[in-house]
Parts: sequence; structure tokens; C-alpha cells
Amino acid sequence: MRALPDPSELAEAIRAGDRAVLARAITLVESTKAEHQAVARRLVQILLPHTGGSIRIGITGVPGAGKSTTIDTFGTNLTAAGHRVAVLAVDPSSSRTGGSILGDKTRMARLVNDENAYVRPSPSSGTLGGVAAKTRETMLLCEAAGFDVILVETVGVGQSETAVADMTDLFLVLMLPGAGDELQGIKKGILELADIIAVNKADGDGALRAKAAAAEYRAALHIMAPKSRVWSPPVLMISGLANQGLDALWEQIGVFRTKTEASGDFAARRRAQGVRWMWTMLHERVADRLKRDPVLKARLPALEADVAAGRLAPMVAVEEIAGVLGI
Amino acid sequence: MRALPDPSELAEAIRAGDRAVLARAITLVESTKAEHQAVARRLVQILLPHTGGSIRIGITGVPGAGKSTTIDTFGTNLTAAGHRVAVLAVDPSSSRTGGSILGDKTRMARLVNDENAYVRPSPSSGTLGGVAAKTRETMLLCEAAGFDVILVETVGVGQSETAVADMTDLFLVLMLPGAGDELQGIKKGILELADIIAVNKADGDGALRAKAAAAEYRAALHIMAPKSRVWSPPVLMISGLANQGLDALWEQIGVFRTKTEASGDFAARRRAQGVRWMWTMLHERVADRLKRDPVLKARLPALEADVAAGRLAPMVAVEEIAGVLGI
Repeated sequence: MRALPDPSELAEAIRAGDRAVLARAITLVESTKAEHQAVARRLVQILLPHTGGSIRIGITGVPGAGKSTTIDTFGTNLTAAGHRVAVLAVDPSSSRTGGSILGDKTRMARLVNDENAYVRPSPSSGTLGGVAAKTRETMLLCEAAGFDVILVETVGVGQSETAVADMTDLFLVLMLPGAGDELQGIKKGILELADIIAVNKADGDGALRAKAAAAEYRAALHIMAPKSRVWSPPVLMISGLANQGLDALWEQIGVFRTKTEASGDFAARRRAQGVRWMWTMLHERVADRLKRDPVLKARLPALEADVAAGRLAPMVAVEEIAGVLGI
Repeated sequence: MRALPDPSELAEAIRAGDRAVLARAITLVESTKAEHQAVARRLVQILLPHTGGSIRIGITGVPGAGKSTTIDTFGTNLTAAGHRVAVLAVDPSSSRTGGSILGDKTRMARLVNDENAYVRPSPSSGTLGGVAAKTRETMLLCEAAGFDVILVETVGVGQSETAVADMTDLFLVLMLPGAGDELQGIKKGILELADIIAVNKADGDGALRAKAAAAEYRAALHIMAPKSRVWSPPVLMISGLANQGLDALWEQIGVFRTKTEASGDFAARRRAQGVRWMWTMLHERVADRLKRDPVLKARLPALEADVAAGRLAPMVAVEEIAGVLGI
């Protein structure tokens, strides 16, 4: 059996920029083995004072919206300007489908060969809560390794956008050009999460359609109460393929950061995210404990089925579960 | 000390339509005393086979949207047509403000004097989860007592709309007439929850403005993916004060029910709600247990503060809490 690594040594190597050690540490974070988790916990705690120095940007968009191409171009622009960029992903479906966003690294051909960039696929197993927790910890490791821009991509399965918005400073939604009926199908709730909307593929023949789409999104945003007192989500037009509008996008990200830092919203969002994360992980832990319990393992599916069928009052089921847990 | 009531006797009296016993049982459900909770649990379990026979309608709207007047008129129409109507409320703020929606029963002057209606204010203490759980159980008691229409009102504090949408078959959003800038300020996410939108005060001078508002809401709904394959939320115009459009509203509720029952969505929504309710209550129970624990009572605020400040990794905090819980 291979000896467990020493968390302090790992931390030192990560801070010194050793990419092989960073990759090994992320693998520990993603491991489901208890002894690996214990090392990962200590490692993250040691590195904690050296985290938080990046701007954390969540990115979503429907399939075909051009997420990979845009991230590849945008990230390459940023490394050219002296930034260090990490690209992570939250895709709770990747364990089921076998595939994964970012699983095929050729999707971001330039970034994966860029020494100032680090591309890591989605953890390939676990519930959304588990995948999100691992991605959060990976984000902290990347910050300790000196990456100052973290891009967290999601495909938008189930509640994954909410999870990504809740681990990032800014949530960017990529939209396709088009207008009227073509716009139908925006995922529910997505406009509420957006800090910036970017209509992609706004080049060549797409420019006019993108303009029409942008107007519709602005109208839709207009009737909703802004999430923040200091920030109303702008609707930009970009082309990831043609590298158009990405400077303006980065500028808006800077304005967002300046304004929300000045108002205190930036720090408040991170504080609230940390506390919610703690509670989410505790709930995951309780759920895990229930699934591992020899009595409940057999009983829980029956309890859930009885509650679903209206044969058992939820409060009675809770009483039984709490009794087994001893709480 | 007053002896605890026998749950079987309570159940029998409730099913026989004894309103005094129903009120007493709801008080037991709302009690925070462990012995009262134990009786309430047994009572709900006994009555469970006699529940589920109502249409459960959630209603929200901004202050001034005319919720009370509309519910009073709508409910009176329904009792006149032979229905038995229970009006409940979820207002987690009522314990803080001292006031409560429905606390002032004069707000629904006709319904409170209608022998085929039952109006119950919001439970006056607890977290949103606690208030919602008590309202859910009260709903079950009302169904067992023969009420076939349950209206659950919420003022829309924090996440209360989500909680109400998650305990009802249909979520009705009352909107004010107005257009353009006047529409600004719709609470985030509310359009996603709506199964029916009703623009209220669409009488007299308000009719034209209501028409314009309805068009804007339809446009906003248009660009969002429908929640269901068999139902697109209609935007109706009503006047609770002038009793206009409420028959059409009831008709749409009937169409919703018919379509979603045929597709299986109606039953599926109730099943999923039951299971989520169970998990929510279990999480509440864990949180309660943490707050009552002598060690954690003192430690938890410090842990939360350290996590919020970025001094402590959430996973480390979770490890400590789980250790105290023994899970």
C-alpha cells in the first residue's frame, strides 16, 4: 500500500506551483476513501489562509451555446494578459453518462497546452452536493497554487447552476442568438442567477439576430427586481469563435468586482456561501450516514415509498430515522 | 395538568366535522412541546387515509395586490357553489413582527362567518421550515375534516413562496395592474413557480392597465421553458373586489387539475412533495438537535463565524459537528 502523503509537504509544493502535486492533491479531494478525505481536509485547512485571491466566475449555457470555444478563447486572452487561469467543471451527470464536460480535453485545445492555465474535468462520481463540494475544494487548491481567475463551467443538469452560482463571485450565462420563439426554452430560474448575460455567436450573420435576442433578454430582466442594489446584469454580445466582445466582458467583470467590493456585497456573498456550504455538507453527511446504516439501508427505500404513496406521515418517518441515528 | 387528548378520539371528532376539536388539534400540531408533538404525530398518521381529497392552492402576491379581498370573495363563491373551503397561511415573519397575515380575521369578513369555511392564521413561531411543516399538517387535518378546497396564502417573506408552492397542487400568483416600469420589482423566481397568474384590480379604470400588464407577463413567460409538458401558465384578469373573472379562474384551476391528473403530473407532484418534506424535516431535526446540544450550542456560532471569515474549512467544521452528533 502506498503511504499517505503528508499534507504539509503537499501544501508547500502546491504553493510553489508544482502542477503534478496539485493534480495529485485534487485526486485526494475527489477520493471517496476516508483516509484520503482526512488528508484532503487537513490540506485544505493548511492552505486556507492562501485562498480567496481569485475572481471566481461561474459559466453556464445550453448545449450549443459555445461554452468550450468561449472559455478557450477567453482564457487564452487572460493568460496572454498575465493572468493564471483554472477551468473546473460541475457535471453531476458525468458518472451516469460515462462522458463528461471537459472530459475531452481537446475541447479547449489552446488552454490545455497553456502553461498558465489548468483544466480539470468534473469529478466523475457522486451526488450534485458531493460533486459541488469537491469542485469547491479544488477551487481552493487552485487559488493556493496562484491561479487568479477560476472559471467553473456547468452543463446545467438539474440544480447544478444553482450549485455553481453558490460557489462563485459572478455568474455568467451564455445565450444563443435568436429572437421570439427561438428564445423559448431558457431554463427556469436562470435569469435570476445571472450577473452578466452574454449572447454568443454575435459575429457575421449572427450579429443582427444576437442584437434582437439581447433586446428580449433586457426586456425580461427589466421586469424583475435586481438581485443587488449596486448591480443590474448587463446583456453583452460576444463571439467566442471570432474573439469579439471578450475584452468588454472582462471589463464588465472588473466593474462588477469594483462595485460589489465597494458595497460589501462581494465579501458578504463569499461569507454566506461558506456557511451554506457547511450546512449542505452536513446534510450530505447525514444522508450518507443513513445510507450506510445497516438497519436504515434496507428500511429507507420503504419509508420513502410509504411517504410518497401517502401511507406514512413524513413526521412519523422522521421520528423513526432520527431514532436510528440517535439524535 | 390537563390530560393529553386521545388521538383516536380526536380523529373521530375531526372526521365528524367538530370544528372545536379541529381547532384544538391544530393547536397540538403547532405546539412545540414534545408530548403534544407525539399526540399530533399519531393523530396525523391515523387520519392519513382520509387526507388528500382536496385541491391545494397556494396564493401569493405583493402587499397591496389584494390577496385578502380576493380570497374572501373567491372562497365565498366556492362555498356558495357547495364547496368547503379552508384558508391557511405561511408567514414566518409573524413571530418577529407580532402581526400576522390572517391574524386579523376581519380581513376576510365573509369567510370567517361562513360555516362552510375555516380560516386559520399562520403558526406564530418557528423557522420557515417549522411554520411550513405545521401548515402542511394542518392542511391534512382540514382535508380529513372534509374541506375540499385548501387555500394557502403567503406574504412572500424570504423563501416562503417556495415552501408554499411545495405543499400545494397549484400555485397562483396575484399581480397588480400596471405596465413598463411599474412592473419592476417582481420577486425573483416567482414566475417560475406560477401555475396561474392573475392580474387583480382589473375593474373600472384598472382594466386597461391590467390588460397591458397581462401582455407583459405573457411575454416574460413566453421566453421561459414551461414547467410542465401539459400546462402553460395562463395570465388571467380578475377583480377580487368586484367579483370579476373568478369563475374563469376556478374553471382554469379545473382544467389544470384535469390535464395534470391525466398526465400523471398531479400525483407525481404530491409524491415528490411528500419525500422532500420528509428530508426537510429531518434536516430541521438535525439543526434542532445541534442547537439543543450543550457543547455545540456554545460552539456552533463560533464555527459558523470562522467558516464565514474563511478561517476554517467547511469540511473541517462539518467533521467536528458530526463528531459531536456521533454520526
